[in-house]
Amino acid sequence: MLNDATDALAPLLPLGVLREIGPAYLEEPRGRYKGRAGLVAAPRTVEEVAAVVRACANAGVPIVPRGGGTGLVGGQVMSDGTMPLLLSLERMTAIRAVYPEEGVIVAEAGATLHQVRDAAAKVGRQFPLALASGGTAQLGGVLATNAGGVNVLRYGNARALCLGVEAVLPQGQVMHDLKRLRKDNTGYDIRDLLIGAEGTLGIITAASLVLAPVPAEIGVAMLVVESPEAALTLLSLAQARMAGGVTAFELISGEGLRFLDAAFPDLRQPFADCPDWLVLIEVGLPSGLSADAALEGLFTDAAEAGLVHDGVIARSGQQAADLWAIRETIPEANRHIGAIASHDISLPLSEIARFIRDCSAVLAGMADLRINCFGHLGDGNLHFNLFPVQGKTRDAYDGVRRALSRAVHEMVVARGGSFSAEHGVGRLKAAELAEWGDPARLAAMRAIKDALDPAGIMNPGVILG
Amino acid sequence: MLNDATDALAPLLPLGVLREIGPAYLEEPRGRYKGRAGLVAAPRTVEEVAAVVRACANAGVPIVPRGGGTGLVGGQVMSDGTMPLLLSLERMTAIRAVYPEEGVIVAEAGATLHQVRDAAAKVGRQFPLALASGGTAQLGGVLATNAGGVNVLRYGNARALCLGVEAVLPQGQVMHDLKRLRKDNTGYDIRDLLIGAEGTLGIITAASLVLAPVPAEIGVAMLVVESPEAALTLLSLAQARMAGGVTAFELISGEGLRFLDAAFPDLRQPFADCPDWLVLIEVGLPSGLSADAALEGLFTDAAEAGLVHDGVIARSGQQAADLWAIRETIPEANRHIGAIASHDISLPLSEIARFIRDCSAVLAGMADLRINCFGHLGDGNLHFNLFPVQGKTRDAYDGVRRALSRAVHEMVVARGGSFSAEHGVGRLKAAELAEWGDPARLAAMRAIKDALDPAGIMNPGVILG
Repeated sequence: MLNDATDALAPLLPLGVLREIGPAYLEEPRGRYKGRAGLVAAPRTVEEVAAVVRACANAGVPIVPRGGGTGLVGGQVMSDGTMPLLLSLERMTAIRAVYPEEGVIVAEAGATLHQVRDAAAKVGRQFPLALASGGTAQLGGVLATNAGGVNVLRYGNARALCLGVEAVLPQGQVMHDLKRLRKDNTGYDIRDLLIGAEGTLGIITAASLVLAPVPAEIGVAMLVVESPEAALTLLSLAQARMAGGVTAFELISGEGLRFLDAAFPDLRQPFADCPDWLVLIEVGLPSGLSADAALEGLFTDAAEAGLVHDGVIARSGQQAADLWAIRETIPEANRHIGAIASHDISLPLSEIARFIRDCSAVLAGMADLRINCFGHLGDGNLHFNLFPVQGKTRDAYDGVRRALSRAVHEMVVARGGSFSAEHGVGRLKAAELAEWGDPARLAAMRAIKDALDPAGIMNPGVILG
Repeated sequence: MLNDATDALAPLLPLGVLREIGPAYLEEPRGRYKGRAGLVAAPRTVEEVAAVVRACANAGVPIVPRGGGTGLVGGQVMSDGTMPLLLSLERMTAIRAVYPEEGVIVAEAGATLHQVRDAAAKVGRQFPLALASGGTAQLGGVLATNAGGVNVLRYGNARALCLGVEAVLPQGQVMHDLKRLRKDNTGYDIRDLLIGAEGTLGIITAASLVLAPVPAEIGVAMLVVESPEAALTLLSLAQARMAGGVTAFELISGEGLRFLDAAFPDLRQPFADCPDWLVLIEVGLPSGLSADAALEGLFTDAAEAGLVHDGVIARSGQQAADLWAIRETIPEANRHIGAIASHDISLPLSEIARFIRDCSAVLAGMADLRINCFGHLGDGNLHFNLFPVQGKTRDAYDGVRRALSRAVHEMVVARGGSFSAEHGVGRLKAAELAEWGDPARLAAMRAIKDALDPAGIMNPGVILG
């Protein structure tokens, strides 16, 4: 697999950093891209990362940074162009320090999300960012893609939970900025620029992160609503009552429940008659207020207002886990059915209900299909995924797939929404960004990329294409 | 005041944007800097702002952006170099839209903080950022300096409350990015780069901001603690009990209370014997839990743990306002006494108590002085201000002032703290940033500045000196 450049590069790297190029380094979960790599390097320290980056900069070899490899937009695989070095953070997994009394943890980029969450739990705190892929996804990738998940509504995305980073910039300089401060107004926000840059402006090697207190009371309920409109009014009501204590507010569609039933008939569903729309709500409340009572109060008020028609409130941790299992098994059920196309979109909250209606109607005019629309409604973030009607397979839609996705994204953009809410741009959506991004913003992004990475070696093809 | 460049510039500007150069445009609150301006322009639209910026870029005339002028680090006044144009946002004051059901407001940069807060209150929501100067401070300046205030602990600083910006970049391009989305991972975080850049990377002309729900229950208490250590343990206890519902946690010193007594003898203080340390705590709680009960529960537990020795819980809105008045009158009392030097610092929470002790001891060895240490303890943000002993005036410390400030900042930096927690760098602290900033981070900042503002016309001298 080596080409001239990587051939010459190997002897310049720190001793012992190279790993064998296995297939796992060249894959991504959706199988859309097949990666290539001339070398795979797994440095053990930030200094070794810097040495690798400097060697690549000097040799003109592109670098593809890799965390857990769970990204969904092809940011972790490069399938053409100059043969890259793949830089894996797998050996930098240390939890460097935990400060329970500060609510701060300092961890290396190769630590998995679950390792970070476990270290927090050990001291009675929580790292609130939660992803289904958290056992594999690594902190570096979580930050590089500004990952979201189910608790963004209350705690923000990865960016909001990061206080400081240690990073290697594209010319090999180490930026030591592992601050543990809530307030620090000393110049440009380079940290937030690296977060979400998907490895195109440098390699995050460690981060200091916010640990939140675990709420004294946690409650989970699943409520039947008539429509997405009703769900959004319910959200307003819940937020007004809970003083910001709504930690998750997830939308589930009847189609999703039918998919679950088909793929996982043993998974017990709480409502026999398959409602059109469900909301899964989780609240975290102060000591002195029982979560049961708070959710019952919400249910009563919402029922009186005609927003909610039925519901269950979890009476135990096990029941709460069972309700969450319904939400969290949906992506698996989707894979079982086989999506024609998936869309990770966000919209202004007041546009969502109309969007779901309008977009469904437009797509119905283009093809005979099923829509499973679900996701983080509290954040305006929907996974708007399209599936074959029964009796057809996804291949039957090969001719129309591109047009369907384009129609979805056009309707999103026209309503002030985003065609990549939480997964990032990667290689998959670089063309969409070039087309729909604000020109002045794109020009600023390009200028920054050229200024920080003049050789263009950091994850080429990602974000800016 | 005109020089050749500004002389030639005037006819190139949009009709009617120029204003008379009054002294108010050339001043800053602490009187450290005296500004200059060849022209004062107050555009009415983003297109006019862009036209002014393009004209200045072409003519090579520096631009000093100005909001309410309340900044404390000289970012709004340029006292040397090429005569600048002063760009005031005073005519762009519209609240463009309010979306109560989304929790979003879109406002122009010249709107004052109070105008934004009032517009939120009118629809039953709150814009949580609160500053004493909010009647004058304008949104553009609040964002440009990433302002903080008393509610950062719960709601974050200006950056955390901003969803999108409209801005004019240094070559006159308009960036339209007034998104109303909680999640949008489409490329580099240019928004957060402009926020906190203090007008050196562009002019924010409007922003979409988060409106939070008003908590169902709000409670305020003032508690007597023995030491900053005890205050921090109390903070942990409060956060664990309140599930993140602590909205403010302010430290007040006995010295501050004595200053208040001297400057405002009519201001009623709740504790007769002038305690060494007080904490002002505000909580925002869900419906169903009385704030009184929650604060009494906290007080009882904290008293049992030996953390708190006395306290008052506000029983009415008026009592709450009276307690807040004590905290908010401190800066005025300080001005009455006349500070030798002020420091806007932050520290990791677990370093604070030791810092206060060590730093006080070191300063006592350098000069005979009084320290009023107060501020946003929950954020690790202290205003560590030095005053003459009784019978001396601040002028008596002219010879030692610089050394005192340097000693404070050196001790802050050595403990992983920040020498500018919330006020920004401006012109006042540019030399400190150059000395203490991480070299790789500074190099990245410089590269970004050169890339986005190649002519160097945007607020020269600020941040990067």
